[in-house]
Amino acid sequence: MNIGIDMMGGDFAPREAVKGVIDFCNASNSSALLYLIGNQPKLEELFHEYNFQSDKIKLIHAEQVIDMHEHPTKALKEKQQSSIAIGFHLLSTSKVDAFISAGNTGAMLVGALFSIKAIEGVLRPTISTIIPKENGSTGLLLDVGLNADCKPEQLNQFAILGTVYAQQILGIENPKVGLLNIGEEEGKGNLLALATYPLLKENKHINFIGNIEGRDVFMEKADVIVCEGFTGNIILKMAESLYSIAQKNNIQHPYFNRLNFENYGGTPILGVNKPIVIGHGISQNKAFKNMILLAEKMIEKNVMEKMKKEIV
Amino acid sequence: MNIGIDMMGGDFAPREAVKGVIDFCNASNSSALLYLIGNQPKLEELFHEYNFQSDKIKLIHAEQVIDMHEHPTKALKEKQQSSIAIGFHLLSTSKVDAFISAGNTGAMLVGALFSIKAIEGVLRPTISTIIPKENGSTGLLLDVGLNADCKPEQLNQFAILGTVYAQQILGIENPKVGLLNIGEEEGKGNLLALATYPLLKENKHINFIGNIEGRDVFMEKADVIVCEGFTGNIILKMAESLYSIAQKNNIQHPYFNRLNFENYGGTPILGVNKPIVIGHGISQNKAFKNMILLAEKMIEKNVMEKMKKEIV
Repeated sequence: MNIGIDMMGGDFAPREAVKGVIDFCNASNSSALLYLIGNQPKLEELFHEYNFQSDKIKLIHAEQVIDMHEHPTKALKEKQQSSIAIGFHLLSTSKVDAFISAGNTGAMLVGALFSIKAIEGVLRPTISTIIPKENGSTGLLLDVGLNADCKPEQLNQFAILGTVYAQQILGIENPKVGLLNIGEEEGKGNLLALATYPLLKENKHINFIGNIEGRDVFMEKADVIVCEGFTGNIILKMAESLYSIAQKNNIQHPYFNRLNFENYGGTPILGVNKPIVIGHGISQNKAFKNMILLAEKMIEKNVMEKMKKEIV
Repeated sequence: MNIGIDMMGGDFAPREAVKGVIDFCNASNSSALLYLIGNQPKLEELFHEYNFQSDKIKLIHAEQVIDMHEHPTKALKEKQQSSIAIGFHLLSTSKVDAFISAGNTGAMLVGALFSIKAIEGVLRPTISTIIPKENGSTGLLLDVGLNADCKPEQLNQFAILGTVYAQQILGIENPKVGLLNIGEEEGKGNLLALATYPLLKENKHINFIGNIEGRDVFMEKADVIVCEGFTGNIILKMAESLYSIAQKNNIQHPYFNRLNFENYGGTPILGVNKPIVIGHGISQNKAFKNMILLAEKMIEKNVMEKMKKEIV
């Protein structure tokens, strides 16, 4: 198994990426070979500084870097020697089985959609977030920003993609799927939710339990919550800010600590043909390590193939 | 000044309503006369039990009650002797200057829209919530559920209504207005946000500061945040659930205590001709007391007249 990692992506790259790789290699018995894509002299220097050598890593030199604020499509086209472009090249030619980056999110999405492509039948790929539940369990919310406007059919597919992910990666056997809405009863909601409800109700690939209100997001009611990417993104960023608020106010409590999204590494793009994990710009070593673990698990569990089967 | 109160609305009525009225009368030097609408014998019994007499209250007998789950329009039409129907009758005939209820929300909205009516020029009235900010200040979020689907022109009006409310009731001189969105830059967002941004930018009645992301909701960045009622309702209910989570986990911290929405009493309907305050079904004495204080302030400050001037 080969995993490609953009070592130049994120606010603290390449140092934190290097530290994350070292943490992964030291902690795991994985047989994965890590393709570390970035400025080779810089990477060699850092690995030397940490006195780290391993046959689990392979450096791939990338002459260029796509900055966080560059226009995604333009940058990908013009910077063929960037770490992200090389990563997608390795992935599309099956030199690596998954690709990870905490760099320019737009470029990652463009690369995923145009170089790796959506699974046949998938209307729109989606990104999700882990939701730490108040009772200690873990749920999934999707979409969280890739699709700001959605059609009911898309939400219906997110439910399937989320169900497979929850089964394979979160280990939930029969995930309860909820539709994010502003009332409990069928017949409540905005136009999108009203039109989506009957599709979810009829969908035999999922275990639909009905509407989920804002107050239920952190509760155990549903394992997979579907919504359009606008509301999902607001929820994700609010939840992230709660962790900051708790930190700032010295509130040390296991629940609020679980809202530290670095624990979860990154978010995979669901509905594309191969595992691609996008990290937060502020990713540090722990996030990089966890993204590698996630990519490894997605390859092992053959998640994308299972999604293909459910979507058709 | 006369304030009408539905004493039969809410899960703990009439007892908690009675206790709230007593708390208000004992704590305030207000000259307001409270019209207490409900089952007169029951109310007399409760005031007797609490050994409370005052010339600040006046009991108005209501033979009927609209239950929480009754169909709003049907119930209002058929139960003319209900406390809510009598309340709206008193308000529309100017016997009272404001009306408060923690009862059937739908009936309160229907009454507000059809018996009191929207301010001329207002496309859709709206409901808002107080947002306790991390730095100790207080902001406003609207709409929080009355308008699940919105047009850009509605959001533009919410910005005006919210600005007047923030000035008059929250005491913020020049409230910063933010558009809830999934990116900071102009040109980001869903179709609604994209179409709303230029309207807010051109709006001379408000102090527009740009887009506000989910992470900024609890921060000081904006005083008034506008969004459609779907996302707003999800945020409101998530915030309420955070207070419950903190309580359940014995997290005693001033910030999370401020998320106790009972502190804020209820939400006024903005954009109608007279002050109408809707309480949460779980309202207890503190919420009732605070709703009366809010109604009093809205009358004193002549908020509705000021909104009329800004809207035209």
